[in-house]
Amino acid sequence: MLASARAEFAGSGYDRASIRAIARGADVNPALVHHYFGTKEQVFAAAVASAAAPATQGLDAEARFAAQEFGESFTRLFFGIWENPEGRAPLVAILRSAMNNDTAAAILRRFVAGELLSRVAGGLDAPDAELRAELAAAQLVGVALLRYVLRVEPLAAIPAEELVRRLAPVVQHHLTGTD
Amino acid sequence: MLASARAEFAGSGYDRASIRAIARGADVNPALVHHYFGTKEQVFAAAVASAAAPATQGLDAEARFAAQEFGESFTRLFFGIWENPEGRAPLVAILRSAMNNDTAAAILRRFVAGELLSRVAGGLDAPDAELRAELAAAQLVGVALLRYVLRVEPLAAIPAEELVRRLAPVVQHHLTGTD
Repeated sequence: MLASARAEFAGSGYDRASIRAIARGADVNPALVHHYFGTKEQVFAAAVASAAAPATQGLDAEARFAAQEFGESFTRLFFGIWENPEGRAPLVAILRSAMNNDTAAAILRRFVAGELLSRVAGGLDAPDAELRAELAAAQLVGVALLRYVLRVEPLAAIPAEELVRRLAPVVQHHLTGTD
Repeated sequence: MLASARAEFAGSGYDRASIRAIARGADVNPALVHHYFGTKEQVFAAAVASAAAPATQGLDAEARFAAQEFGESFTRLFFGIWENPEGRAPLVAILRSAMNNDTAAAILRRFVAGELLSRVAGGLDAPDAELRAELAAAQLVGVALLRYVLRVEPLAAIPAEELVRRLAPVVQHHLTGTD
């Protein structure tokens, strides 16, 4: 059902996606989708969480890194997920839904702040840890937008390893540098 | 007609926008829109250029700054445009269209690379000037996405001047720092 939900949100966008179509894609009764997830908002939240599972699991594994090494490991984790077309497609679909619909934006906002960036901020010892995590994430998300969605050259063509090399120090600066 | 085109692309998205509706909004004949702009693609390109005019004009004015001061002036120009709700709305609409439609993405890509970032890269004396300009722009665009579209806190609430203070050194690093 989650795979069907991700496909439906990706194909139809949040506005036009329906529980009925998600049920049809999973070959189950719509009542079963309602039973497991609840409303369309809740299905979307579950789809976001499942698409982002590699990131949340990765960040939990990173918790063993010292904050001084987190810039590179966070940057590497980010591109490890986005470089994989199967991992990227649902993320682009979610971002697209959030840009087109305020409810979807609110769900993504809660997830990004509550599940992803809180994991990053939790490893920092700074009063402005949340803002630092957001500025670091903004650098990476902006690169993802220009590289994978708009495909601006030369950014779209250079090897991911070169991006990690250039961006890790910037991410590290946001996380632990002098503000 | 350009104001009507921006409103139509913002309200309907690129896919559903029509020359007919743009003409109706401007109270002119559709043939006149065709005569001035041509196809829907060409109307969109003109709408992008007009929405980005403050940026292109600002970058031309920045040309007098030395590359060493460009980080702060570029960052300040960016937030000067995005902090103004009237300037922001057409930019969000264009970004949204580009995320939903490949033709709109191609038009925006050509404009960003050919009109905006070429102005930034042109002021740099480096073989990788284009990539540097793109990484700097990615930092700013990512912040815009998290601040104005997703409205993640605390990033959405802190004063723009504080953002300029934190981001200008990073933008400067991308433009002229050791890669």
